[in-house]
Amino acid sequence: MPQAMRPIGVFDSGIGGLTVARAISQRFPNHPLIYFGDTAHLPYGEKSPELIRRYATRITKELVEMDCAAIVVACNSASSNALDEVRLVAGRSVPVIDVIHPVVESISRQFQGDLVGVIGTRATIESGWYQRLLSEKGCMVKAKVTPLLASAIEEGFHEGKVSSALIEAYLTDDFYEGINALVLGCTHYPLISEQILRALPPGVKIVDSAEVVADAIDCLDLDFTSDIADNSTVNGSLRRFIVSDLTQSFQRGAERFFGAPITLEERTLSE
Amino acid sequence: MPQAMRPIGVFDSGIGGLTVARAISQRFPNHPLIYFGDTAHLPYGEKSPELIRRYATRITKELVEMDCAAIVVACNSASSNALDEVRLVAGRSVPVIDVIHPVVESISRQFQGDLVGVIGTRATIESGWYQRLLSEKGCMVKAKVTPLLASAIEEGFHEGKVSSALIEAYLTDDFYEGINALVLGCTHYPLISEQILRALPPGVKIVDSAEVVADAIDCLDLDFTSDIADNSTVNGSLRRFIVSDLTQSFQRGAERFFGAPITLEERTLSE
Repeated sequence: MPQAMRPIGVFDSGIGGLTVARAISQRFPNHPLIYFGDTAHLPYGEKSPELIRRYATRITKELVEMDCAAIVVACNSASSNALDEVRLVAGRSVPVIDVIHPVVESISRQFQGDLVGVIGTRATIESGWYQRLLSEKGCMVKAKVTPLLASAIEEGFHEGKVSSALIEAYLTDDFYEGINALVLGCTHYPLISEQILRALPPGVKIVDSAEVVADAIDCLDLDFTSDIADNSTVNGSLRRFIVSDLTQSFQRGAERFFGAPITLEERTLSE
Repeated sequence: MPQAMRPIGVFDSGIGGLTVARAISQRFPNHPLIYFGDTAHLPYGEKSPELIRRYATRITKELVEMDCAAIVVACNSASSNALDEVRLVAGRSVPVIDVIHPVVESISRQFQGDLVGVIGTRATIESGWYQRLLSEKGCMVKAKVTPLLASAIEEGFHEGKVSSALIEAYLTDDFYEGINALVLGCTHYPLISEQILRALPPGVKIVDSAEVVADAIDCLDLDFTSDIADNSTVNGSLRRFIVSDLTQSFQRGAERFFGAPITLEERTLSE
């Protein structure tokens, strides 16, 4: 396949990564994209590093077989626990972009020497990945596990008492005291960024990964800028949205995360 | 192994089924028990029936290989979607007890002709299993999906604003109006039964499965009543608690559900 026609592969444990796929689609509106949500094994955020590695490499193999030109790990839990393994499977010719390094780069430019808060799943925060990378770039870091937020958002509780009660339970005074910026270290969180912002002291800036990751793709030395004219390249569609387990609930949720009507297709992963 | 020494096998998608294991252990304090929590694949409640069947039969095979005398499906999502498959794998000589039939029997004796509410995961409620069985026994049924409750409880939010906000969001006036009893159709819910009770109109009775399942084991024509004197039979311990993915969070949560200190061991399922 000519380089300009090879799709961008994006994967996540479920449908949260569609916030990243949306940003990429808006940035490259005519470029093919394949999204893979591992709904059969979600959520990754509470699983062990070994298991996350096993699942992430299996999906990477699928995306490489589908001839993806680049792979975006749109899942913080996989980015922080399985990046080396994903790179190994992707091989040298397929660049891999995770959701953490671009965010760390962006923050270190804006908040050098500042105190940065990070919230995410258990797997993401316990890996210590954000903490280490941000420290290396000269930021001070406060990290907190906020595990139920992703499930609550996935269930549609992204406004109202449930998400408020969770934000209140997790974002306590002693956590956000003194921070200059807060990293939303999970691809679900952009859906409640307004609510989180209201809970924070004035002046704290929220950083989410979707736009920053689209920037990172822009910087790749790939032929993505020469958008193709033909709008039907990935099996007849410009974009494919695949999940490893398809239910009506995922179908409904997917449109909320992507922000536009989409159709999910199911593909069982070999076990 | 002599019948009286063969363990009772109990399985669930995660650690919620430990509420059932606890009731069984209290009823048969000297009888060996093996608990298997499929934490690598939890939660089952949001997955498709096909996938739940695949996971449930795999665990049943393990428990049969461990020479269990009876198998308890301590998971409503598996009981309502995979019972036939589990029975097939267990074979005729190993009785299988699910968490739904005993509860339906118990309710139909107490609430004949009454309106019964059922809450549970998406997989449990959408299977229509409770609704069909209760209707056949002459009860009227109102069922409601309450998916986030199990995760919230698993995360330790079993008292306070988060569980209150969820109960308020799910148990609305129009749901509980006119019901005489409410079935807690998920093995996590007993941990918030007091809070649920406070949200219901006076007089509504709550039914949870743990005790009823222990009764059902009592009724089996097995040699369980002749409790063994030797307290070390299952690989040197009276009870084993196995999970397919072991994290510190599961270890902490397990003791909350079981109500006593226990140690989890990990056993990877062949994929």
